[in-house]
Amino acid sequence: MNPYIAELIGTGVLLLLGTGVVANVLLPGTKGNGGGLMVITTAWALAVFCGVVIAGPYSGAHLNPAVTIGLAAVGKFDWGMAPGYIIAQLAGAMLGSGLAWLMYRHHFDLEENPELKRASFCTDPAIRNFPTSVISEALGTFVLILAVLYITGAKIEDEQGTPIGLGSVGALPVAFVVWVIGLALGGTTGYAINPARDFGPRLMHQLLPIQGKGSSDWGYSWVPILGPLLGALLAAGLYKAVGF
Amino acid sequence: MNPYIAELIGTGVLLLLGTGVVANVLLPGTKGNGGGLMVITTAWALAVFCGVVIAGPYSGAHLNPAVTIGLAAVGKFDWGMAPGYIIAQLAGAMLGSGLAWLMYRHHFDLEENPELKRASFCTDPAIRNFPTSVISEALGTFVLILAVLYITGAKIEDEQGTPIGLGSVGALPVAFVVWVIGLALGGTTGYAINPARDFGPRLMHQLLPIQGKGSSDWGYSWVPILGPLLGALLAAGLYKAVGF
Amino acid sequence: MNPYIAELIGTGVLLLLGTGVVANVLLPGTKGNGGGLMVITTAWALAVFCGVVIAGPYSGAHLNPAVTIGLAAVGKFDWGMAPGYIIAQLAGAMLGSGLAWLMYRHHFDLEENPELKRASFCTDPAIRNFPTSVISEALGTFVLILAVLYITGAKIEDEQGTPIGLGSVGALPVAFVVWVIGLALGGTTGYAINPARDFGPRLMHQLLPIQGKGSSDWGYSWVPILGPLLGALLAAGLYKAVGF
Amino acid sequence: MNPYIAELIGTGVLLLLGTGVVANVLLPGTKGNGGGLMVITTAWALAVFCGVVIAGPYSGAHLNPAVTIGLAAVGKFDWGMAPGYIIAQLAGAMLGSGLAWLMYRHHFDLEENPELKRASFCTDPAIRNFPTSVISEALGTFVLILAVLYITGAKIEDEQGTPIGLGSVGALPVAFVVWVIGLALGGTTGYAINPARDFGPRLMHQLLPIQGKGSSDWGYSWVPILGPLLGALLAAGLYKAVGF
Repeated sequence: MNPYIAELIGTGVLLLLGTGVVANVLLPGTKGNGGGLMVITTAWALAVFCGVVIAGPYSGAHLNPAVTIGLAAVGKFDWGMAPGYIIAQLAGAMLGSGLAWLMYRHHFDLEENPELKRASFCTDPAIRNFPTSVISEALGTFVLILAVLYITGAKIEDEQGTPIGLGSVGALPVAFVVWVIGLALGGTTGYAINPARDFGPRLMHQLLPIQGKGSSDWGYSWVPILGPLLGALLAAGLYKAVGF
Repeated sequence: MNPYIAELIGTGVLLLLGTGVVANVLLPGTKGNGGGLMVITTAWALAVFCGVVIAGPYSGAHLNPAVTIGLAAVGKFDWGMAPGYIIAQLAGAMLGSGLAWLMYRHHFDLEENPELKRASFCTDPAIRNFPTSVISEALGTFVLILAVLYITGAKIEDEQGTPIGLGSVGALPVAFVVWVIGLALGGTTGYAINPARDFGPRLMHQLLPIQGKGSSDWGYSWVPILGPLLGALLAAGLYKAVGF
Repeated sequence: MNPYIAELIGTGVLLLLGTGVVANVLLPGTKGNGGGLMVITTAWALAVFCGVVIAGPYSGAHLNPAVTIGLAAVGKFDWGMAPGYIIAQLAGAMLGSGLAWLMYRHHFDLEENPELKRASFCTDPAIRNFPTSVISEALGTFVLILAVLYITGAKIEDEQGTPIGLGSVGALPVAFVVWVIGLALGGTTGYAINPARDFGPRLMHQLLPIQGKGSSDWGYSWVPILGPLLGALLAAGLYKAVGF
Repeated sequence: MNPYIAELIGTGVLLLLGTGVVANVLLPGTKGNGGGLMVITTAWALAVFCGVVIAGPYSGAHLNPAVTIGLAAVGKFDWGMAPGYIIAQLAGAMLGSGLAWLMYRHHFDLEENPELKRASFCTDPAIRNFPTSVISEALGTFVLILAVLYITGAKIEDEQGTPIGLGSVGALPVAFVVWVIGLALGGTTGYAINPARDFGPRLMHQLLPIQGKGSSDWGYSWVPILGPLLGALLAAGLYKAVGF
């Protein structure tokens, strides 16, 4: 499988499952309505697991521009492939969240609050304070990327520029890391920790003919892009500074 | 162990546990009454784990006609063995759900609502809309089969027609995949994602002398057969299209 | 470490944790009060994990007379060592539950209902019907022992009579099996599935100076002995019948 | 990576996540408010997982003075390195809990009860009885250290004095052990089971400019130091007594 296709399919599965679980918990009439934080965080962690199991051997399963940039920043990934990876991740995120909407659309129609409709697609801070939201997203992503850097090993595994990242053996550890970030650091902004995960579905929310939808809240959309990028660079910097 | 016996025992254990957990959560007077979505999805995931641990080395632990057909469609399983596998899976599903009823039957007797009695046996959509229910079951099964195809490796492992599928090493990943499908994509139809899991117990519901039972809802019974088969073929098609 | 000591310590840790979690969930004033089924079943599963991690390499980590008898019945364990194993398991179960009581004793004192005090020590059926309770315990133990037999491999691993069972590599699978049994088959009797786990702590309940305790309910005490033994023999019989 | 730096970063990540989850569950207005025991214990277990994944190959990932002392007491760690390890653990714990406060500080500001503000930083007994609290902390730590000793293997792995402990392969088992200790033995004192985890953040609570904070409860602070040390020595003593 082509690595860009792998990123697209892996991120698509991630967002189908991730958008799905939030819809299941928040929207009226579903079998998971009111399931709570444990349901949401467990599902997002396992959604990453699925994406890594599928894409791992082909693209390294970044599924996240912050991972791509973090790995490239420490020399574990070819910068030249980064733009293609990020485009594939965005496209996959849009596709996956669109499929989840297709499946849950009668439940979207039942919901009257436009903010709850949007919440299945993209993140929203508990308290709207831009600097603190950026710090939150940066800290969550910092933990993710630092762990990913140590999971993927201390040395560059491939000298020929082949994409490197999480093979299938990294699926379980990275899922556990995502799980705890959701439980522990998701309380302020809902832990995007992945620009593609937020921006792609937000764009779908804008584009799809969702009944009675409100604003896509573009005013907040830069936070889950900037925060994760800062966190990734912080983790890469620490990784290079402390040696490995 | 003969592979057909392995499928029967594995699917039997799957449905004993799966029927059991729904009875435990839904029926009155049990120790798990009101346990909620997390209890149900965790148990179904681990029920798959148990079935795969037991049957994996002998039959590849399909435990699901959609898995059998998905593997056969990509050339990883001999089509000639498929009918026997599917019959064994159905028989196992009937046996397992019957044992769960035997164990929980005083609690079935305490319940007055016939729909809750049936819910331990087979699935039911949150909103009755056939096309959307088929899409839901197809998407859930698509994720399952796609993951199974990548878990079982990129190449046919056995040239002699020996049944191939999940060995015991696949028990954990497939359980995690089933867990997240339940959490994320189970909100609309209750995620049969397995024709034997729904049809076998539905038949048992019809046949068993359950006190005060209502209809077995045969009008819906084709959805959790058609949807999973479509999802399996979709996954097999994608797998072949993208290369592996 | 001597295998009998390993069984004693492993079962001691199992019951310290198992008695502890029920006390934490049921007794007033604890930090886990009202935690529910998920908390209890997760903890019991992980308690088995701990016991197996500690005792696995030394005794095979049976921690349960039903495991000892199931393994012996299929020729995977020396019958001559079985009595010593079972005595060590009982002693460990008593010791572990006694330590849990020591730790939670102020919370035991706060509780007025003697049945809730006893519930931390031993099991109790949701509906008192002896035949159904025996069937429940037998079915739960049947799944446990069948899975254990396949986890421990298809052949006798040691020809010299060295105790054989779960090494540390079996800790995770057996914990998952215990988890799902609790979730799915624990709803009727509270899943002893282990005669030592019920009888040892019940004896401690009788012996310890627990403030305001009521009856130790000896009238039910034979059920969680007979049921598990029947289940273990059923699993052993099936294992031998189907080949492996 | 230098082993002391590894201990600092690993313990920092542990406390960032651990402080974070308690803030998320206890403080008003967060997305995890009211998440309960399962959320807290799962996150602390996975926080240990993250810390071990990152620090494991470099320092053995003690992240806890009780682990350092327990390993040293059985000859698996060089006593001469223990003071440096413990200082690094304390510094990491302070740093991590400070970052979590930074991220959740608007939610800290919303909370009026000073005891709930402090609860994110350090532990507090359900019933204030010093001997029982010491016993609780000792028993919880005893289980942790005993399991760690058996996870790290029966023999000293390195004759050259290189720090030894949990490599990354120990991340999953130790996380599971911490999970069950929280569920089963955390009901009385909130399971510090780690002097650095309690003392470091308590000091931060004293030092940070937290709005409307009350006492740092130094009167209790010796319990989560003494209890874990007793538990570690008890586990080390048993490990040496029973042979391995």
